[in-house]
Amino acid sequence: MNLPPEFLTGLGNCLPSNLFSLRPSELEAYSRDESSQPAQLPLAVVWVETAEQTAAVLGLCNRFRVPVTARGGGSSLEGNSVPSPGSVALSLERMNKVLEILPQDFQCRLQPGVVYDNLNRQLARHGLFFAPGPSSGDVATIGGMVGNNAGGLNALRYGVTRNHILRLQVVLADGSIVWFGTQAMKTSSGFDLVQLMTGSEGLLGIVTEIILRLHGLPERKTALAQFADLDAAAQVVYEVMSSGILPGALELVDAASIRHINRYKGWDWPEVPTLIFEFHGTPSGIAEEVEIVREICVHLGAVRFEIAETPARRDQLWAGRKEITNAEKSLYPGFIMLKGDIAVPLSQYASTVRYAGALGKKHSLAISIFGHAGDGNIHWHTLVPPGDPAALANGELASAELIRHAISLGGTVTAEHGIGLAKREFLVEEHGAAVDVMKKIKQALDPNGILNPGKMFLEKD
Amino acid sequence: MNLPPEFLTGLGNCLPSNLFSLRPSELEAYSRDESSQPAQLPLAVVWVETAEQTAAVLGLCNRFRVPVTARGGGSSLEGNSVPSPGSVALSLERMNKVLEILPQDFQCRLQPGVVYDNLNRQLARHGLFFAPGPSSGDVATIGGMVGNNAGGLNALRYGVTRNHILRLQVVLADGSIVWFGTQAMKTSSGFDLVQLMTGSEGLLGIVTEIILRLHGLPERKTALAQFADLDAAAQVVYEVMSSGILPGALELVDAASIRHINRYKGWDWPEVPTLIFEFHGTPSGIAEEVEIVREICVHLGAVRFEIAETPARRDQLWAGRKEITNAEKSLYPGFIMLKGDIAVPLSQYASTVRYAGALGKKHSLAISIFGHAGDGNIHWHTLVPPGDPAALANGELASAELIRHAISLGGTVTAEHGIGLAKREFLVEEHGAAVDVMKKIKQALDPNGILNPGKMFLEKD
Repeated sequence: MNLPPEFLTGLGNCLPSNLFSLRPSELEAYSRDESSQPAQLPLAVVWVETAEQTAAVLGLCNRFRVPVTARGGGSSLEGNSVPSPGSVALSLERMNKVLEILPQDFQCRLQPGVVYDNLNRQLARHGLFFAPGPSSGDVATIGGMVGNNAGGLNALRYGVTRNHILRLQVVLADGSIVWFGTQAMKTSSGFDLVQLMTGSEGLLGIVTEIILRLHGLPERKTALAQFADLDAAAQVVYEVMSSGILPGALELVDAASIRHINRYKGWDWPEVPTLIFEFHGTPSGIAEEVEIVREICVHLGAVRFEIAETPARRDQLWAGRKEITNAEKSLYPGFIMLKGDIAVPLSQYASTVRYAGALGKKHSLAISIFGHAGDGNIHWHTLVPPGDPAALANGELASAELIRHAISLGGTVTAEHGIGLAKREFLVEEHGAAVDVMKKIKQALDPNGILNPGKMFLEKD
Repeated sequence: MNLPPEFLTGLGNCLPSNLFSLRPSELEAYSRDESSQPAQLPLAVVWVETAEQTAAVLGLCNRFRVPVTARGGGSSLEGNSVPSPGSVALSLERMNKVLEILPQDFQCRLQPGVVYDNLNRQLARHGLFFAPGPSSGDVATIGGMVGNNAGGLNALRYGVTRNHILRLQVVLADGSIVWFGTQAMKTSSGFDLVQLMTGSEGLLGIVTEIILRLHGLPERKTALAQFADLDAAAQVVYEVMSSGILPGALELVDAASIRHINRYKGWDWPEVPTLIFEFHGTPSGIAEEVEIVREICVHLGAVRFEIAETPARRDQLWAGRKEITNAEKSLYPGFIMLKGDIAVPLSQYASTVRYAGALGKKHSLAISIFGHAGDGNIHWHTLVPPGDPAALANGELASAELIRHAISLGGTVTAEHGIGLAKREFLVEEHGAAVDVMKKIKQALDPNGILNPGKMFLEKD
């Protein structure tokens, strides 16, 4: 498959020659994301610098029916930004400017290629932050977060990405540039196209500018609690969430993950189910919340309850959660890491974590479980030895069983990673006939199907 | 215009004879909402009791191209539920059951005709509530709140209706029944059809079942602060919102509204700009917030700061906000009340309230202003004497000026009432070419245009 010469001439008219490339090394560099999905070479890589360039490229692609897969940091986990076959990979990396910070409005205006951690470094000078807190914040771009409706550690208290988007500038499939949304904090004006676009994984348009809602940086306090068994930890989660306290973060880490952390760090934490709390608010409000949570934990038999009294200790407690992936990559070199991302109603959290553990035993797999317990989000890693197709098949089988378990409980097949390539078969299982409605919307906004085709929907659906 | 006999036969096959009516008194009763829009008689009134009946009626209407306007409590304020010309008025009032309360999941499942206050009475037994808090909570149905994405007093802390919807059962224009969404607290699975449906004012489908996200009932404390001038009150709003405190409610009431309340109630409150706060949380968290807010208010020259020490006094302070409409209806009998509902970025709040006051003077109109100051939402009432078309024209002119002022500041033409009939001309002014995208979605989901036609979009758009 090759791009027609007329298309390449057109591309040269849209963009300076340094903003597109057909070089194999570039095609290779843009052929994958952070998932275990197979690489797919694009036919060209394009780096846009403006909305107008994006519009020109999309108009051209639409005319020639050439698919376009947009990408930010390439840190998606389900193949969301792996180029569609025969596509142009359209990188937003160069559109990486924070255009305006509006502290009086708790807002900022930025380009989609801004990296999450960079944004928050700039916002911190104004006492503000963009809250969700994805684990991949050092590479994830805000545009990519919009595309996948990314969550993270702080989504429990502040909401996921979709709860922070006020306005989006979007280039549609036909190359037109439109603005969705308002800078007001709430609106009932027309269909909510901002919400439709958020989480649409590049299938409905390409975001070229974003106005975000921000929060004031709160005081913080971190606590860690460990429990002899999972039921006690899960009961703590439920009782804390019922108490009227809304923690900044409430994370579960299972015994297997703590075992990995201990080996990686040379620590000797009890290898039991662990909760990590972050409390946000005013100093005495936090102090009161810490005491309430300490009482709940002690009452339910915590074997350890520790408040981080220094920033260094806080970082150390958080390492028990944040270093899981690094620990496992180091301890299991060459292993394939299958990553899961379901969410279930809160009352089903403990039983689902137990179910995941049992699946690991059943399939003789190393499955470690952790996640955003406060909002019912369960992540898991299945570590599959290299060159063992039977184990890989088992790992995928276990993932599918766990995903279907979530569906059976009224849960979702993906809480914050999106559908991409990897979860397509489960979209219909979760949503049934609603998928036809999604496809009608896709057809209405992208009649030639040039935007990230092959993602989200299976052909046969 | 009449319904064809074959259609009426079909209706008789869909529904028992007590569930539809062509009687003039019934048509008259369902011909208006709470707006100042002219009444429009429907051709028939239908009261559905199940999703299946709704599906049968929509299938029939779609076959005969008969428009359908769904309605709940009929308390919409922009003509949203005034029947489309030649339509069937489809009432969801009889679908008024709370089907399931799931305290462990902070969720409930209910039919769309449940009235807001009734729902919260049932939820209170479980220590839970559905937070937004519309002023019309004694008549507004949850289905209507979904249709208009209703807000209210507590939206500041908890979000508007759209932030509380997990799943919706929807009957589409072709009579098919689908479910959108998930019972998980967050999801990135496919296009967010729940968000698309919320606020779509009956143009994309009819909601027949709802799963809501709930909050635990917090401790509450109410405070009132009064200021010699508007700038001081507005500065307090900004400083409170910057302090990290998120009040349960933060309302502004202007001097004119307080004057009305004084006359209605026989009170002698200082007739100056007034803020009403509600603090939600744990007891000592609330105590700390009250002290911080008291300091801010005193520092900025409050002429009065009062904490309600009893429930009776709390209700009395709140009456200063909640009784405004009743006071004005009583003091200005027969007057037309034009109601406004813009929102602007927070930094523009004070200047916009001042602009509204100046408009009243310019047009010699009695304009009273109040609203959800914490999220930049400004409501106003323009009281137009009966039988004075010049004053009415002036009132409408003033509304249009204020709405366009909001647009010029990046705000929205409606924060929580929706577009309906009254705001249609402003939809394009606010959204520009994005309205074409909305219309493409409408066309994709309702190709025959039977769902609430003539609302939201002007024909010429």
